[in-house]
Amino acid sequence: MKLRLWNYWRSSASQRVRIGLGLKQLAFEYLVINIVKQEQFAETYRAKNSIAQVPTLEIVHDDGTVHTVTQSLPILEYLDERFPEVPLLPKDLYLRAKCRALSEIVNSGIQPMQNLSTTDRLKELGIEAKQWAPGFIASGLIALGRAAAETSGKFLVGDAPTIADCCLVPQLGAARRFHVLVDEKLADSTHQDAIDRLLAIEANCLALPAFVNAAPDRQPDAVKP
Amino acid sequence: MKLRLWNYWRSSASQRVRIGLGLKQLAFEYLVINIVKQEQFAETYRAKNSIAQVPTLEIVHDDGTVHTVTQSLPILEYLDERFPEVPLLPKDLYLRAKCRALSEIVNSGIQPMQNLSTTDRLKELGIEAKQWAPGFIASGLIALGRAAAETSGKFLVGDAPTIADCCLVPQLGAARRFHVLVDEKLADSTHQDAIDRLLAIEANCLALPAFVNAAPDRQPDAVKP
Repeated sequence: MKLRLWNYWRSSASQRVRIGLGLKQLAFEYLVINIVKQEQFAETYRAKNSIAQVPTLEIVHDDGTVHTVTQSLPILEYLDERFPEVPLLPKDLYLRAKCRALSEIVNSGIQPMQNLSTTDRLKELGIEAKQWAPGFIASGLIALGRAAAETSGKFLVGDAPTIADCCLVPQLGAARRFHVLVDEKLADSTHQDAIDRLLAIEANCLALPAFVNAAPDRQPDAVKP
Repeated sequence: MKLRLWNYWRSSASQRVRIGLGLKQLAFEYLVINIVKQEQFAETYRAKNSIAQVPTLEIVHDDGTVHTVTQSLPILEYLDERFPEVPLLPKDLYLRAKCRALSEIVNSGIQPMQNLSTTDRLKELGIEAKQWAPGFIASGLIALGRAAAETSGKFLVGDAPTIADCCLVPQLGAARRFHVLVDEKLADSTHQDAIDRLLAIEANCLALPAFVNAAPDRQPDAVKP
């Protein structure tokens, strides 16, 4: 069995899956879909991923059968069920639900507002990404930090990394890129405590090689500034 | 143990959870958060749901402890783990991943583009919802219908309803509301086969009381046209 990941260095959804693969110490072939060059719309890729997004995980079985899984959270859940050795979700049912909800605050609550298909369409309508994304990212991160108060330890849920932390670290990277965090501060200091909670957890994540190695600028297709 | 659902009649994410509760034949108390009147931003509700969205499920245990779960897909996963009798996910690991990916095409790929916080912000920037949402809904539904070709039977994954069908039916309702489907047709007929697949599955869903009873206009807070 071999794993192939179609992804892009700066895609935060791709980064989530790279982190999960790293935490589980699963080797994978890194395949590039350059979403800035619109390679995701090629029919050969759409046959794998009909909504034309990254990432896509291919599981190549020893008999040659290829299974294709799309969408970052379903990929992480699949990896967790298929390779349970290093769990990415808590065992307790309530904490599992909390962990998934924190992940969805990023996955459906924030990321769709900043992704390329959204900002490209805004541009067609005369709206700059900087007029749009920062407000959603700031309020989403405040909501995430606040929700995490109930469950967090060293990580978003307890003291071991989960799928929620796989979502957190790339989202904080995007927050810096959109200047939502400047010198690690929000413009509105009222909610800085929620952000500080996230930053402390991020520091614990970045002590682990899986998070460091998944960073955008470490990837083979990274464009140097 | 009792279940309480904070929700809103026309919210598609609320409708997904109402369907799931119905499929599992779980009774629940229906509590209203009127998102048009901005009740989701009240501090008492934000304490339950920090990102100020519906739905929120509260599990009131017999000892008085209240557990709070937010985000529609995490709520459905929680219900499936806590009350496994009528499963909402397939058993096979690959099909589970496919089922979750179909759900995410709606949950993170389409719905965030049509929800009220998005269309309200667009309005502030001088953009009407009808200039924005229909394109995302149409391309998302085409992607969903195309992806479903691999797994669908009577329902999106095989012959029993899953969380993916809980997402499909409310999304088709939104598509009609945004005039993406007129007389059940897309404006661009090239991809009508993908839509027809979804409509056939919707018809099978609507033969089940759980889907019928969860419809927006059947809810106590529904506003008559």
